[in-house]
Amino acid sequence: MRLNTISKIKEHNVKIAILGGTGNEGFGLGFRWAAAGHEIIIGSRLAEKGAQAAKDMLAKLAGGVIVSGTDNLTATQQADLVVLSVPYSAQEKTLATVAEALAGKLLVTVVVPLGEKAARVWRPPSGLSAAEEAQQQVGDQARVVAAFQNISAHHLLDADHDIECDVLICGEKGADKDLVAQLCADAGMRGVNAGPLQNASVVEGLTSVLVGINIRHKIKNAGIRITGI
Amino acid sequence: MRLNTISKIKEHNVKIAILGGTGNEGFGLGFRWAAAGHEIIIGSRLAEKGAQAAKDMLAKLAGGVIVSGTDNLTATQQADLVVLSVPYSAQEKTLATVAEALAGKLLVTVVVPLGEKAARVWRPPSGLSAAEEAQQQVGDQARVVAAFQNISAHHLLDADHDIECDVLICGEKGADKDLVAQLCADAGMRGVNAGPLQNASVVEGLTSVLVGINIRHKIKNAGIRITGI
Repeated sequence: MRLNTISKIKEHNVKIAILGGTGNEGFGLGFRWAAAGHEIIIGSRLAEKGAQAAKDMLAKLAGGVIVSGTDNLTATQQADLVVLSVPYSAQEKTLATVAEALAGKLLVTVVVPLGEKAARVWRPPSGLSAAEEAQQQVGDQARVVAAFQNISAHHLLDADHDIECDVLICGEKGADKDLVAQLCADAGMRGVNAGPLQNASVVEGLTSVLVGINIRHKIKNAGIRITGI
Repeated sequence: MRLNTISKIKEHNVKIAILGGTGNEGFGLGFRWAAAGHEIIIGSRLAEKGAQAAKDMLAKLAGGVIVSGTDNLTATQQADLVVLSVPYSAQEKTLATVAEALAGKLLVTVVVPLGEKAARVWRPPSGLSAAEEAQQQVGDQARVVAAFQNISAHHLLDADHDIECDVLICGEKGADKDLVAQLCADAGMRGVNAGPLQNASVVEGLTSVLVGINIRHKIKNAGIRITGI
């Protein structure tokens, strides 16, 4: 298990809001980041659901971690960095709710657009990636980085289980991607710079390819590794 | 090196035309398939260039292999299976040249559409993958399978070098993809069923992501592995 210990990472801990953090993927990432010493604020449409998820997460973790839960807007206001982990169908509405509070913050989107058949690559009608749509919606106020699209939620809550999948990170600024790569490492994964935000369409689509491989091989955690580096 | 020996594979050898087989990628694949006992017909726009490439390939191989070279149409007429390995800008014209001779044959396309900046994902203006465009163009006459888009040509001619990259195979029929997976194995690679032909857009785009990783890491052969299977 390659999670950093709390003591090692205290000097650079980050206040992370996870919008949609009650879902498996956001909850699993929050669990690993909390264990690594980051402060986690679970956001939900309803504050009570966020608070309940925080209780559930605390019950799974040792003492000394900082986890709370509230509604998405309050979570965004309290955080340094915001993770968007909602179904694609809820992306636009969720971002509209928190737009002003995002100003000056980094928005890390985990969103994967999926069509009726999840194993067939599907793109939003705009022809853009979900990540580019998010960037268009928030405008200059916040910078969007896409990451974690290919990570199966399946093993995130099992802290002793290495995640056999690299995280492809797409965004415009190297420094933003370096920070997200650190968050990958803190969660026991390797982050790889996958180029500009427009490349997110490939990373999002790759999730459908992996879903199909899961189905055909009767497994739950097909992933990818970048080789040669 | 996991290439099959000629003796092992004789019972299922295939006559393979490689359109654009004078280029690095097609030439490298042909080299590995010839070594594995398949009959290779290198196609080129000009018959003389195809013939010259065949001579060059024979000079790199031990005796007992079958390699010839000619123009793309003649190569297609002579083959059981046709590999399209031309730049995207030449795809439509090349297919138009050979369309009738393709009837009833499997067309394996290696084509990757690349924009001005190869490390930025670029798609044809139609919004389709190059592979789907190829299928539209040839119609019901031939079935198209996409494969080998992510394989760097760099090590193909070095028969002692394992290729550290899986081949994602997209197509409509399982039997076609099984055959292509066998061709992957014969060339020392693992083929993975990546779903229907529409998923080829992701596999094609992944090449741009890998090109960017090559540039950033100053390497020539970044690849991907599917994990968990």
